[in-house]
Amino acid sequence: MSDDAAFHRAADQLIAAGRFLFERGWVPATSGNFSARLPGDRIALTVSGRHKGRLSRDDILIADMAGNSLDARKPSAETPLHVSLYARLPHANVILHPHTVESTVLSRVSGERIAFQSYELLKAFPGIKTHETTLNVPIFPNDQDTQRLARTVDGYMHQHPRIPAYLIREHGFYTWGEDIDAVLRHVEALQFLLTCELELRKIGR
Amino acid sequence: MSDDAAFHRAADQLIAAGRFLFERGWVPATSGNFSARLPGDRIALTVSGRHKGRLSRDDILIADMAGNSLDARKPSAETPLHVSLYARLPHANVILHPHTVESTVLSRVSGERIAFQSYELLKAFPGIKTHETTLNVPIFPNDQDTQRLARTVDGYMHQHPRIPAYLIREHGFYTWGEDIDAVLRHVEALQFLLTCELELRKIGR
Amino acid sequence: MSDDAAFHRAADQLIAAGRFLFERGWVPATSGNFSARLPGDRIALTVSGRHKGRLSRDDILIADMAGNSLDARKPSAETPLHVSLYARLPHANVILHPHTVESTVLSRVSGERIAFQSYELLKAFPGIKTHETTLNVPIFPNDQDTQRLARTVDGYMHQHPRIPAYLIREHGFYTWGEDIDAVLRHVEALQFLLTCELELRKIGR
Amino acid sequence: MSDDAAFHRAADQLIAAGRFLFERGWVPATSGNFSARLPGDRIALTVSGRHKGRLSRDDILIADMAGNSLDARKPSAETPLHVSLYARLPHANVILHPHTVESTVLSRVSGERIAFQSYELLKAFPGIKTHETTLNVPIFPNDQDTQRLARTVDGYMHQHPRIPAYLIREHGFYTWGEDIDAVLRHVEALQFLLTCELELRKIGR
Repeated sequence: MSDDAAFHRAADQLIAAGRFLFERGWVPATSGNFSARLPGDRIALTVSGRHKGRLSRDDILIADMAGNSLDARKPSAETPLHVSLYARLPHANVILHPHTVESTVLSRVSGERIAFQSYELLKAFPGIKTHETTLNVPIFPNDQDTQRLARTVDGYMHQHPRIPAYLIREHGFYTWGEDIDAVLRHVEALQFLLTCELELRKIGR
Repeated sequence: MSDDAAFHRAADQLIAAGRFLFERGWVPATSGNFSARLPGDRIALTVSGRHKGRLSRDDILIADMAGNSLDARKPSAETPLHVSLYARLPHANVILHPHTVESTVLSRVSGERIAFQSYELLKAFPGIKTHETTLNVPIFPNDQDTQRLARTVDGYMHQHPRIPAYLIREHGFYTWGEDIDAVLRHVEALQFLLTCELELRKIGR
Repeated sequence: MSDDAAFHRAADQLIAAGRFLFERGWVPATSGNFSARLPGDRIALTVSGRHKGRLSRDDILIADMAGNSLDARKPSAETPLHVSLYARLPHANVILHPHTVESTVLSRVSGERIAFQSYELLKAFPGIKTHETTLNVPIFPNDQDTQRLARTVDGYMHQHPRIPAYLIREHGFYTWGEDIDAVLRHVEALQFLLTCELELRKIGR
Repeated sequence: MSDDAAFHRAADQLIAAGRFLFERGWVPATSGNFSARLPGDRIALTVSGRHKGRLSRDDILIADMAGNSLDARKPSAETPLHVSLYARLPHANVILHPHTVESTVLSRVSGERIAFQSYELLKAFPGIKTHETTLNVPIFPNDQDTQRLARTVDGYMHQHPRIPAYLIREHGFYTWGEDIDAVLRHVEALQFLLTCELELRKIGR
């Protein structure tokens, strides 16, 4: 595939993902950002501040693995979180960062992690073969210094390389996968689990 | 109708059902599975791991009544739950297994059954002619050994042949009907009842 | 307008209303029924048991003002509730009976009425010009004898002719209007108010 | 741009915004109203009582900056709230007034303001560069005398010119922006924050 074709394919997948996430209410008010790994140590990345439900190819730029835009447009402020994940995880090819009510609310009232236990849907994540397990998803404090936040996340992932997602407190979550289908499966699964946990708290469990 | 025509008709009904269920959020992250009885002691069944909101005919295989795939593709791990239901219930021609927040949450906090009482919508299920009744829907413990789980369910249904649905703890529910319209009616009715029960718990009832 | 044209116009309005109500989840599992007044002391009425989100003209019959079908099809079991309303309220030309979670849950935990107070949206109902008022919407016990239920409702409305809607316990609500736009406005407004009241109960108010 | 072109562009943006807001359930039952600033000290404004999800250009009138209709149609009763905002805020070019469950419920149980603290999504509003802040959104008592209500709001805004939105008790909210994209971003952000606050109250926080 030519470089152009690879970019167009990645961009079109992010555009379609954005429409889906926006329709569900998971990237409101231009929040969230998306990326995909491209050939040649480059990534496709949403431009800062664009509406995620109405993306066009013009809203997606190309950056190098240091997070520098390779064209004139400004990448998302959270670019360091994307590039450090690609460096850390060679099999991650797409990263989505939705910004949902459920992750925001639960991260606000939880400690350093949320533990998901006994759900069949845990099997949507790589390496989980039974519901008889606990998945710990970490919550990092929000930080406008995203370079520093990226180092915090990366240090944690050095110790816990198999987590499929993390939350930022009052700031949505990040998840990734080997392709767009995998990462969308992780988004849907995590939203399902977060919603279950929030519902359980509403009935006093 | 030729064998091909019967398969295509069944597959297209399951595909449309998948789109509807996914849009409502009832089969997230490739969860759930669907089947339909075909002529000649065969069934149409969703292939393992496919996205239920974007099924094509290629995502639906043909299996025999022992649950063996009649082509090269891998059937859902939960095939035993489908074939044992078809063997038990001669009038069941379509089976849907959604995976909803409401069934997951309520199954987590309930005992061996959920009792639905006094709802007019109970009349959506076969044989119920008045709201002045109680419908008991059993909850079975989740089990990765689906052969064993199928035997547990089948043993229960031997005693209670008229239940229209069952839940698996933290793992959605199964329901069935004589045709696609009937089973969709059961899905919608059960989701309505589960939602009512969950709402009641949120207000302390 | 010819009789045919009047029927087609009414039927098409009910069909479109059904699609909208179903999409919102307000007529699940073939619940609900709809009608419209026709010239010549007749009404158009949904046939019993049809899916309200996928109605066609074939799913709508013509009945006389006694509720007798004027063709071979079976009218809804709740026909007496429709015809008695048309007899009682000369300006009511369309009646919708949705079956929502919110009305079901609140009717289950409330006494003989729900009082809506201080909401701006109360002005969506006829004759209400300020939020500084209270709207009492009665709740009638559910009854499979719909002739008897219709008499109960009619007796109440003889005393309270200005109510814009009523609930049946665990069985949705009825509302009406001079045309399809008016009755849809009443449906939306009542659902909004019911949802507000349910949310208030969830936070202990 | 000619006067006609400016009107058509503004009207089409309000029509599209109405469809979006209605689909989300944020302008039920003909509630809400929208406006946009036009060249020549005029505004485009929704006609009183129209369905906001099905607006056409005929549902949008032109008024002067005193709120007088420049054609025969009746402007929204809340016109004074629009024109006083345009007079107060020279950079506000579009105003949307949705009527949501969350704003209605929270305004009913809150005092004179709602404080939103620590949310990343606060950055969707102008001038907010970090989540480490608190946004106070005022709640004004509902008043059928909208001239008086407009004076109350305007007096507050004289003291607090930088607020991006306000609530009216049990009557939705107003927000504005330099263009349609900005105001929709504010609507989505405020709805997100209100939903989070309501969810937090449901779990006792």
